[in-house]
Amino acid sequence: MGKEGIRYAAKVSFDKPAAEQEVLHNRWHPDVPSIGTIKNGEVVKIECVDWTGGQIGNNDSADDVRDVDLTKIHYLTGPFEIETAEPGDVLLVEIQDVQPMEDQPWGFTGIFTKENGGGFLDELYPKAAKAIWDFEGIFCSSRHIPGVRFAGLIHPGILGCAPSPEVLATWNKREGELIQACSHMDRIVAQPPNPQNVHAGSASSEIKEKVGKEGARTIPGRPEHGGNCDIKNLSRGSKVYLPVHVKGAKFSVGDLHFSQGDGEISFCGAIEMAGVITLKFTVMKGAVKELDMKSPIYIPGPVEPQFGPGRYIYFEGFSVDEHGKQHYMDATVAYRQTCMRAIEYLRRFGYDDYQIYLLLSCAPVQGHLAGLVDIPNACTTMGVPMDIFDFDISPHVKAEKKDLGSCAFASS
Amino acid sequence: MGKEGIRYAAKVSFDKPAAEQEVLHNRWHPDVPSIGTIKNGEVVKIECVDWTGGQIGNNDSADDVRDVDLTKIHYLTGPFEIETAEPGDVLLVEIQDVQPMEDQPWGFTGIFTKENGGGFLDELYPKAAKAIWDFEGIFCSSRHIPGVRFAGLIHPGILGCAPSPEVLATWNKREGELIQACSHMDRIVAQPPNPQNVHAGSASSEIKEKVGKEGARTIPGRPEHGGNCDIKNLSRGSKVYLPVHVKGAKFSVGDLHFSQGDGEISFCGAIEMAGVITLKFTVMKGAVKELDMKSPIYIPGPVEPQFGPGRYIYFEGFSVDEHGKQHYMDATVAYRQTCMRAIEYLRRFGYDDYQIYLLLSCAPVQGHLAGLVDIPNACTTMGVPMDIFDFDISPHVKAEKKDLGSCAFASS
Amino acid sequence: MGKEGIRYAAKVSFDKPAAEQEVLHNRWHPDVPSIGTIKNGEVVKIECVDWTGGQIGNNDSADDVRDVDLTKIHYLTGPFEIETAEPGDVLLVEIQDVQPMEDQPWGFTGIFTKENGGGFLDELYPKAAKAIWDFEGIFCSSRHIPGVRFAGLIHPGILGCAPSPEVLATWNKREGELIQACSHMDRIVAQPPNPQNVHAGSASSEIKEKVGKEGARTIPGRPEHGGNCDIKNLSRGSKVYLPVHVKGAKFSVGDLHFSQGDGEISFCGAIEMAGVITLKFTVMKGAVKELDMKSPIYIPGPVEPQFGPGRYIYFEGFSVDEHGKQHYMDATVAYRQTCMRAIEYLRRFGYDDYQIYLLLSCAPVQGHLAGLVDIPNACTTMGVPMDIFDFDISPHVKAEKKDLGSCAFASS
Amino acid sequence: MGKEGIRYAAKVSFDKPAAEQEVLHNRWHPDVPSIGTIKNGEVVKIECVDWTGGQIGNNDSADDVRDVDLTKIHYLTGPFEIETAEPGDVLLVEIQDVQPMEDQPWGFTGIFTKENGGGFLDELYPKAAKAIWDFEGIFCSSRHIPGVRFAGLIHPGILGCAPSPEVLATWNKREGELIQACSHMDRIVAQPPNPQNVHAGSASSEIKEKVGKEGARTIPGRPEHGGNCDIKNLSRGSKVYLPVHVKGAKFSVGDLHFSQGDGEISFCGAIEMAGVITLKFTVMKGAVKELDMKSPIYIPGPVEPQFGPGRYIYFEGFSVDEHGKQHYMDATVAYRQTCMRAIEYLRRFGYDDYQIYLLLSCAPVQGHLAGLVDIPNACTTMGVPMDIFDFDISPHVKAEKKDLGSCAFASS
Repeated sequence: MGKEGIRYAAKVSFDKPAAEQEVLHNRWHPDVPSIGTIKNGEVVKIECVDWTGGQIGNNDSADDVRDVDLTKIHYLTGPFEIETAEPGDVLLVEIQDVQPMEDQPWGFTGIFTKENGGGFLDELYPKAAKAIWDFEGIFCSSRHIPGVRFAGLIHPGILGCAPSPEVLATWNKREGELIQACSHMDRIVAQPPNPQNVHAGSASSEIKEKVGKEGARTIPGRPEHGGNCDIKNLSRGSKVYLPVHVKGAKFSVGDLHFSQGDGEISFCGAIEMAGVITLKFTVMKGAVKELDMKSPIYIPGPVEPQFGPGRYIYFEGFSVDEHGKQHYMDATVAYRQTCMRAIEYLRRFGYDDYQIYLLLSCAPVQGHLAGLVDIPNACTTMGVPMDIFDFDISPHVKAEKKDLGSCAFASS
Repeated sequence: MGKEGIRYAAKVSFDKPAAEQEVLHNRWHPDVPSIGTIKNGEVVKIECVDWTGGQIGNNDSADDVRDVDLTKIHYLTGPFEIETAEPGDVLLVEIQDVQPMEDQPWGFTGIFTKENGGGFLDELYPKAAKAIWDFEGIFCSSRHIPGVRFAGLIHPGILGCAPSPEVLATWNKREGELIQACSHMDRIVAQPPNPQNVHAGSASSEIKEKVGKEGARTIPGRPEHGGNCDIKNLSRGSKVYLPVHVKGAKFSVGDLHFSQGDGEISFCGAIEMAGVITLKFTVMKGAVKELDMKSPIYIPGPVEPQFGPGRYIYFEGFSVDEHGKQHYMDATVAYRQTCMRAIEYLRRFGYDDYQIYLLLSCAPVQGHLAGLVDIPNACTTMGVPMDIFDFDISPHVKAEKKDLGSCAFASS
Repeated sequence: MGKEGIRYAAKVSFDKPAAEQEVLHNRWHPDVPSIGTIKNGEVVKIECVDWTGGQIGNNDSADDVRDVDLTKIHYLTGPFEIETAEPGDVLLVEIQDVQPMEDQPWGFTGIFTKENGGGFLDELYPKAAKAIWDFEGIFCSSRHIPGVRFAGLIHPGILGCAPSPEVLATWNKREGELIQACSHMDRIVAQPPNPQNVHAGSASSEIKEKVGKEGARTIPGRPEHGGNCDIKNLSRGSKVYLPVHVKGAKFSVGDLHFSQGDGEISFCGAIEMAGVITLKFTVMKGAVKELDMKSPIYIPGPVEPQFGPGRYIYFEGFSVDEHGKQHYMDATVAYRQTCMRAIEYLRRFGYDDYQIYLLLSCAPVQGHLAGLVDIPNACTTMGVPMDIFDFDISPHVKAEKKDLGSCAFASS
Repeated sequence: MGKEGIRYAAKVSFDKPAAEQEVLHNRWHPDVPSIGTIKNGEVVKIECVDWTGGQIGNNDSADDVRDVDLTKIHYLTGPFEIETAEPGDVLLVEIQDVQPMEDQPWGFTGIFTKENGGGFLDELYPKAAKAIWDFEGIFCSSRHIPGVRFAGLIHPGILGCAPSPEVLATWNKREGELIQACSHMDRIVAQPPNPQNVHAGSASSEIKEKVGKEGARTIPGRPEHGGNCDIKNLSRGSKVYLPVHVKGAKFSVGDLHFSQGDGEISFCGAIEMAGVITLKFTVMKGAVKELDMKSPIYIPGPVEPQFGPGRYIYFEGFSVDEHGKQHYMDATVAYRQTCMRAIEYLRRFGYDDYQIYLLLSCAPVQGHLAGLVDIPNACTTMGVPMDIFDFDISPHVKAEKKDLGSCAFASS
C-alpha cells in the first residue's frame, strides 16, 4: 500500500446535475442501491458535491440563496456496501482527511429567508444573505466579511449508515406525530417524506417511487444513525462509531464543510463546499451491544486549530427571550440570546448584523451548555476566537467603526 | 505591593452558622449593606463558605443531601463597595486564584431528591446521593467514585453586582409570570422571593424584612448581572466583565467549585467547597454602552487542564426523548439524551448510574450545542476526558466490569 | 480569486532525473537563474521533489540509503523572483499548506552509514537503515516500525532567499576556516563548494561552473538566510520572515517533510517526501532594519497535532557522555544522552535500537534546552508523545516485549 | 484523609538564617541526616526557602545580587526517608502543587556579575541586575520590567535522592577531571567539594566535616539523580521518576521557581521564591532495572499555561558565534545566538538589554533543539509567548519605543 495513491471509491461530476449522477442520492432509505463495495479495513477517497448540488454561485448576489430549492439538496455520495458489516455491528469510520476540490477553492455560507428554510435567528434576520469564502491552503477569507481569516475546521456535515425498514418507520412515525401536534404553529417543524425531486441513485423507477414515498429526509440528524449531525469537531483525524442497521451498512457521506461554528446557526451556516474525503472503515462485530450504543459516539482528531483558552471572548445567554419573557430551562432560547449578545458586541466594529450572523455560523465558535439546573434559567455561552480577526476585538480596546463592506444580499 | 501578602477583604468563620455572619447574605437586593470597600485597581482575597453553608458533611451517607434546607443556601460573601463604580460602568473582575481552605481539603457533589431540589435527570434518578472528594494540590479523587482522578477546573459558581430596584422588579415580574403560567406543572419552575431564612448581612430588621419580601433568590443566573452562572471555565486567570447597576457596584461572590462539568447536571453538581478567591477589580467607566453589554462577558484564563482534543470521547444526543417522543429543536431535551448516552457507556465498567451522574456533573466534561438548525432535531454533544480514568475507556478496548464500590446514598 | 484554483508557480517531473529539470537547483548562489516571477501578495503552489531527488525507493532494503550520492541531493525548486523585493526587505512567506503528491502517498526516513553522511548517533549506530512510511490523509504509519501511527507535522525542511555575493563569501570563508581548523578530526565537519553534480537550473555552462565553484552547499542552515533549518514547527499556517539579500529575493524551497522530531537526529531523519507547498509571499519594505533582523524569525501555525502536556514522557540528558566524561555546558552532548535515554526506555517494548533511532528522528518529539547555566552540566530533555503508540508506554505499565519486526537494513 | 489538611513534613523559618535550620542542607551526600520519614503513598507539604537562603531583598538595587555569597545557596529541605525505598527502586514523586508563601508574594530574577556566578550571556552582559516580581494569584508582574504579566509555570528547580558513596565518588572524579582539563580557561567550569559554609542539617561536626569535604555541590543537575535540573515543565501535576541510590532514598527538594524559561539563561534566571510544595511519594520496587533508567524521566502536568502555537514568536540561532566564527554543531553556541536574536527584536520596544535578558530567563519561553545534523550548523529556536506583553509585539506592527523604566542595577 502507499505506492500508488489511495483508491477513489466514488467520483462526482461538476458538469452534470447532481440529480443525474448515479453515485448520489438524497434520501435515507434501505433500498437505495449500493454504488460500490469497500473492504473492512480499507482506506478510500470519496468525492462529494456541495449540499445544494451546485445551486449557489461564486458571485455577489444572494438571489440564489433566496430561491434555493430545498427539495434538491443534500446529495450524498453512496451508499457503500462495507464488507462483513451486519446489523448490530458498529462501523468505525476514521476521517483521515477532508479537502476541497483542488480546482474549486471556495465555499459559501448562506442565510435563508424566513419563508424558505429559515434559520436560528430568522425572526430577527428574515432576509437572504450570502458570503463567499476563498480557500488558501488551510485558511479561508471572504470578500463579504472583511477583517477575518481563519484555519478551517474541515469536516463532513453528514455521514451515516442506512436505516433498516424498522428504524425508518420509527422516524416517519415520530416526526409525523410532531408535525400533527404542531399543526397550529406558523412554521415548518419537520420535513415528512416527499417524492418531489427524490434521487435514489441508480434505483429502478419502482424503487425510486418507494424511496420517495418512505425515504427519510436528510435535514435532521437522528439518534439512531447520526446523519446530518453538523458536528464541527468531526474533523481531520476523528473516529466516528456508527451503528449498523442493514447488511453491508450502506454508508453515505456528504455535505462537506470547510468550517462551522457550534450550532451552525444560519442553517446554511457552515462554509459549504464540494470536496473529497478520505475515510478508513473498520467493522466492529457485535459492538452495538458491547458498547451499549444508542447513538453515534466519536473521538476528535488531533489537528484542530488551537487558539489557547485565553484567546476566546465568551458571551453569556439565558432563557429569557428578546421580549423579556422568562422560559423554563430552555437551552435553545438561551443560545439564541447568546448569539445576539455576540452580534451586539461585534457590530460595534462596523459589521452589519447579517455579516456577523454569517460569521458566527461558520467560524469555529464554541457553544457550551454552561448551566442547566438553576431554575428557571438555562445558561449557555459562546466563545468567539479573537485571533480570527485582523484587528483587536478585546473589550479593553476602544472599538472603532471601520468600513467593512457588506455581505451579498438578494435583489429586491 | 507584594511585600506583605494580599489583603483579605473578608474572612468567614467555620465555627459559626452562616446565617449569623455579617459578611454573608443570601439574596440579591440593592439594600443589603456593604461589608467593605475595595479600591478601583485593588487585588484582594475573599473567603467563602460552601454554598450550603455547611449543611453537608464529609461522611458516607447522603441523608444530609436528602434533607438539605434549600432556603439556607448560597451564602455569598459581600456585598463590596467598589470605589468609583456607578450604574452604566462595567466592573472588570479578574480571578487571580481560587483555592480551597487549607485545613478543609475536601468537597462534595450531591444529587438532590426529586422532591427537594431535583436535578437535570431527576425523572430517572430521583434518589439522594453524594460523593466526597479529597483534594491533593490541584487534583481530586473520591472514595465514592473509584478509578477517577483529575485536576480541578476551580472557579466561583456565583459572582455578580447587586441589581438596581428596577432590575429587581423586572426579575420578580417575569419569574412570577412564569410561575403563574406553569402552575399546572408538577414541578417548581422558579423560586419567588421568600422571607424564610433570609440573610441580609448586618441589615436592620426593617431592611431584612424588605430583602426577604423582594430580594431575588440566588438559584438562577440572570442575564442582567450574571449571578449563579455556574460557568466551569470562569477559572483561574479569567476576566469577567459585569454590568454595574447601583452605586458602588455592591459585588458579591460565593459558591466556589473545585470542578464542574458543562451543565452541572445534578444541580448540586459541582465539587462544592469552602475556599478563598483572589480577585482584582477594575472599573471601566461607561462601558455598558461602549460594549453594548446586556449580559456579562468573559475571557477564560490560560491554565485550564488540557487533555488534547483526541483524548475526549464524545456522546451525541438529539431532541427525541427517552419515551421516543420527537421534540422540536429542544437543546435541553437533547442534552439530557446526551448525558444518558454517556451514562450507558460508562456503566459498562462497573459504575452504577448514580456514580456516573455525579461524575458527569463535576468532572470537566465539555457540553456543546452542535447543531440547532436541522429541524426537528437539536443535536448536542458531551465530551468526557478519557485521562481522568485510571483505566482505558476507549471504545476499542473491551470493557471489564470492575468492583467500583458505591457513592453515598441516603438511609431509607 | 478562488474560482479556478491556485496557480502552480512550478511543477516538477517524476519521470526525469532531478538534475535535468530546469526548475530545480542544488546550490545557494545569486546567479542561479530565476524560474519565474511571483507577485507581492500572491499565493502560489510549488511542487518539490524529495531531497534525494528520487534516490530512495519504497522497498525493504537500505542499500539505497547506504549508497546514496550526497552530491546529488537537496534539489530545490526555484529560485523565484518576488516582485518589488530588494536587499534590506523582509520576505514574509506564509505556509498555507503542504501536501504529499497525491499519487505518491509515502515517504522515508533513513540512517546513513557513518562513512557516508552519518548522523547524530553514528558512533553508536553506524549502519544504514530505513523505514518507509505510508500516508493515509493526515496520518502515517510504517511497516518497518509497527505499533506507531501519528499525524504529520508537515513542513518544508528548506526555504530561503539567495545569498548576495558578499553573504556567500562570508559563508565560504568561515566554513573553510572551520574545515582547516578541524583537519585533524576524523570526520567531515563541513561541506565546501564542490562542482561535482552541481545543478544550477537553466544556467549557461559558464554560470554553472561558477555556481559549482562558489555555490554554498545546501546541507547546513545558515543564520543569514535560514535555508536548511529543519524546524519541525514550520508547518501549515506558519509565517516565516526571511531577510532578502538580492534583488527579487530569489526564493527557493524544497526538502519537504511529512513529519520530523526536534533535532532530526538521524540526518535523513524526517519523513522525506515529494509534494506540493502552497505559499503566500509578502514583501515588507526595509524591514530588516525595522525588525533588527539577523536571522529568520517565524510564527507557527494553529493546526499542529496536539497531545496535551500530560501525554508526553520526557527523558533527561546531561553533558556527561557515554564514556562517563564530563563536558562543560555542552548541549549537543546532553541531547545525545537524552536520545539514548529514550532509546533505552523504548527498546523494552521489543523495538530494536535502529527502529527507535528512526522513530525519534521523524516523530514529533519535543527537544528542549532545559538548563544551560548550572555548571558544568547542560541539561536537555526530549518529550515523546505517548499517543503515537498503539500500546501504553507509561512507566507504570509493565513493558512486554512484542514482536515488532525490523526496519530495513542494507545487504551485507 | 482529606478532613484535616495535608501534613507538613517540614516547615522552615524566615526569621532564622538558613544555615542554622536543621531541616535544611546544601550539599548532596549520603550522610546528611534525615529530617523525617514519609510513608510510601503519602502526600505531604514541604516548605522551602528561596535558593539564596534569603540573601536577596525586595528592593530596587542589585547590590545584593552582585555581592551574593555562592557558597551559601541552594538550601534544600530534607533529606526525607521514604519508607521501603531501597537502591534500585524508583521513587515516583508527584508534584501536586507548588505555592509561594502566602505572606511573601514576591520573587526575584537576577543576573550575576561575570566575576561572581556569571550566566549564559555574561560575555555580553557582565553587570549585576535584578527584577522583583509581585505575585497576584497565578500571575506575576514586575516594576522592573513593565509591560509584561504572565501566569507562573511554577516548579521546583531542584529535587532528587541522595547519591550513594559510589555515585558521589563518580561525580567528584569526573568533575575534578574537567576542572583539571580546563585549568587554562579563564572561567570556573565546575565547583568541587568545598567545606566553606557547608550545611549538613543536624549532622555532628564530624559528619559535617565529611560532608564538606566530599559532598557534591548543588549547582549542576547530574544524570544519576537529577538534582538541579531546572526543568520549567516540572510544574503542578507532573510526575517525576527518580532513581534511588541509598536506603530510604533520602529525598530533598528546594529552589522553588514561580516561573522559568528554557535554559534559565541568566543563571539566577528563574523567578526565585520561598514557598511550599505538595508532593506524593510512591516507591516502585526494582524499577531502575525494569525501566532501564539511567537518568530521571518525567511526565508534565495538565495545567501549564497555554498560549496556542500561533501566539509565539520564534527566533532562530545557529552555531556561528557573535564574532562570526563557525563552530561545529554546537547547540550551546546556537542557543546563545538565539537568545541574542530575541534581545535584538525586543529592544526595539524600549526595553534595555538587561531587562530582556532577565525576562527571557524567567518567562515561559520555549527553547528547542531544532536541527542537530546539518553540518556544521546546529540550529536552535526560542519561542517567546506574545501574550505576556500588554502591547502587540507582532512583526507586522510597527514598534514604538516606550518608556519602560529600568531593572535594578548595582551601585557603582
